[in-house]
Amino acid sequence: MALIVQKYGGTSVGDVERIKNVAARIKATVADGNQVVVVVSARSGVTNELIARAKAINPRPDTREMDMLLAVGEQETIALTAMALHALEVPAVSYTGAQAGIVTDLVHTKAKIMNIVPTALRNDVAAGKVIIVAGFQGLNAQGQITTLGRGGSDLTAIALAAALQADKCEIYTDVDGVYTADPRSVKEAQKLDEISYDEMLELASQGSKVMQSRSVEFAKKYGVIFEVRSSFNHNPGTLVKEEVSYMEKVVVRGVAVDKDQAKVVISNLPDKAASAAHILRALADASINVDMIVQNVGHKGLVNLTFTVPKEDAHGAVKVLPAIFEKLGGGEVAAYDNIAKLSVVGVGMRTHAGVAAQMLEALAEQNINVELIATSEIKVTLAVPRDRADDAQRAVHTAFGLGKV
Amino acid sequence: MALIVQKYGGTSVGDVERIKNVAARIKATVADGNQVVVVVSARSGVTNELIARAKAINPRPDTREMDMLLAVGEQETIALTAMALHALEVPAVSYTGAQAGIVTDLVHTKAKIMNIVPTALRNDVAAGKVIIVAGFQGLNAQGQITTLGRGGSDLTAIALAAALQADKCEIYTDVDGVYTADPRSVKEAQKLDEISYDEMLELASQGSKVMQSRSVEFAKKYGVIFEVRSSFNHNPGTLVKEEVSYMEKVVVRGVAVDKDQAKVVISNLPDKAASAAHILRALADASINVDMIVQNVGHKGLVNLTFTVPKEDAHGAVKVLPAIFEKLGGGEVAAYDNIAKLSVVGVGMRTHAGVAAQMLEALAEQNINVELIATSEIKVTLAVPRDRADDAQRAVHTAFGLGKV
Repeated sequence: MALIVQKYGGTSVGDVERIKNVAARIKATVADGNQVVVVVSARSGVTNELIARAKAINPRPDTREMDMLLAVGEQETIALTAMALHALEVPAVSYTGAQAGIVTDLVHTKAKIMNIVPTALRNDVAAGKVIIVAGFQGLNAQGQITTLGRGGSDLTAIALAAALQADKCEIYTDVDGVYTADPRSVKEAQKLDEISYDEMLELASQGSKVMQSRSVEFAKKYGVIFEVRSSFNHNPGTLVKEEVSYMEKVVVRGVAVDKDQAKVVISNLPDKAASAAHILRALADASINVDMIVQNVGHKGLVNLTFTVPKEDAHGAVKVLPAIFEKLGGGEVAAYDNIAKLSVVGVGMRTHAGVAAQMLEALAEQNINVELIATSEIKVTLAVPRDRADDAQRAVHTAFGLGKV
Repeated sequence: MALIVQKYGGTSVGDVERIKNVAARIKATVADGNQVVVVVSARSGVTNELIARAKAINPRPDTREMDMLLAVGEQETIALTAMALHALEVPAVSYTGAQAGIVTDLVHTKAKIMNIVPTALRNDVAAGKVIIVAGFQGLNAQGQITTLGRGGSDLTAIALAAALQADKCEIYTDVDGVYTADPRSVKEAQKLDEISYDEMLELASQGSKVMQSRSVEFAKKYGVIFEVRSSFNHNPGTLVKEEVSYMEKVVVRGVAVDKDQAKVVISNLPDKAASAAHILRALADASINVDMIVQNVGHKGLVNLTFTVPKEDAHGAVKVLPAIFEKLGGGEVAAYDNIAKLSVVGVGMRTHAGVAAQMLEALAEQNINVELIATSEIKVTLAVPRDRADDAQRAVHTAFGLGKV
């Protein structure tokens, strides 16, 4: 008898009918002779409604109270899902994060899971019950309700799969799996049967919004193999796991585009060793994440520094930097809100030169300007004009032969 | 420094603006130099929405899951209320029923409070914080969330006031207090400055829907003096407490009408000692509450038995009884769904004869038929035709001089 952890996201449990549909899937898994532990999110929209109500009352709500508030979304879904299983005559019992033994640190609204003590849960599994656990939430050592931040329900599922040493972990969502590119922009995009943690991480951080990076990192750390698949059909999904030997033959696994980017250009900086460090420290202190940093020396020994930031942080960067320029004795900043990041990802890249060259050639053929280039071991990222991002994605997807045959 | 427990019902915290209004009232209470513990209900409508969603999924939802579901209503309100206080710069912290130490028995959806262990709560009060407690909910000895059933938030407030030995308990609702009659039907009705627990109980059980009986009973048992008042104005409310000597001078305290009643008439019962007992046992087993029982012997030694039941139980009574008639060797049943119960209540009645007579005279003057009469120590109840109930209430209200002078 296998123990399977299944996670259903907000759209999968969005309304009464969908919750019934999820219950039917769970029942089928039980009928196949499995023990099942289910993690569910809040119904889609509920969390945003709660946040809107909070902000209408207090523009800067206390984070402890925010967790108290947001935890109700998942608590509603677990009860409804258990009731739906009872209607199908499947024994089931709901667990809040606290009841499931999910112990977090003391940070509110983005707590980290410290430990899972699933004693009660294990007893109920052994007694033949399906367990429905509220995703996204836990309890800290002071007995306070905490939430895990974005992608928290995925994390709950992966962490429970690790703690229970589950045989399988299935992440049900509204897409069929991980694709070689976003199927909405690239119609030839193919679903991948499997992908390594590292490739998934690079794709996730570059805008393939299937899953948050932290859940994939957690799965990698604890060796939890999981499958990303759709709750709306029975197609097989994508298996995410440690890289295996035959993966190495594949140079490029997929293409990702992130359109919510801006380019920040700092010019005329005095060429001191610490100039860039001061600037990056100031941005870090303002919680602005920079990426694709390029520095070059211009005329008269003055330095230019260019990088990308999430679009919504561009204004913050422009506001924060002049104070630093004053200390450094010079500098100007400008932000350009018309950038997209295009990445190709693949573990095979490590042993294959020329990936960047091949990308640049494909884009040159389409007359698409490349503004910045950044490379890592398994990824090449280019900054391109946002209005050419879809063309660029298609051109690169074709150049690497990722399309359907 | 006085410790005050305040309870705000669902209409008082019905939306964002009303929650802000409640926060302002709490702030004013704190500014007067008081320590404040607040109990809040779910926003009005939320509990019914949750129940509707549950019933759409499972017509007979499991009671444990129902409690898991319903507890979210109050959990939302406590977080929002705490945020509203923070916006007014009042230190505040929310508590679920479990966190407030409210320990219940194992019965789901209508749990009884067994004990309150408000250790953490007391520490936060001592630290100068306003405590916002989720009404209606607790935790049982197995770590399961329970709810207290109808009127549960009032009960939470009264029980907390008892456990904390609060100096004052204020029940905020959408009416100004307890009136001599329903002000919607009797425009001369007067608000009472004070009323005894027993009078309040008799009025509550007879349809003055200010508060559920169980909360008043709990208050009487533990000697918790509380005030019923409106959250929408600053009028003083009605103080509910043990009877005091000067109350005895007042014969009748108030009039109540319950229109949701039916009369059940059982005729031609064999005159056996156990006939009525068998019938009442069968009704009790079917959870049908009977009231105003009258038995008389008709012709040929056959017995008639008449009583009132809540309107929605009339059909159940008619269905349950024929099986009993078969065992008893005779009997017929008919239900009349056109009855209202009119009660006058007052502790002074104990020492004053003639209250029933005075009521009957007042009704006779208006040509209102009285179908049944029942009396207790502090109450006289008459069953009257439902379409004359308002006339009857006004006539009796005037007869006892309860109107405004």
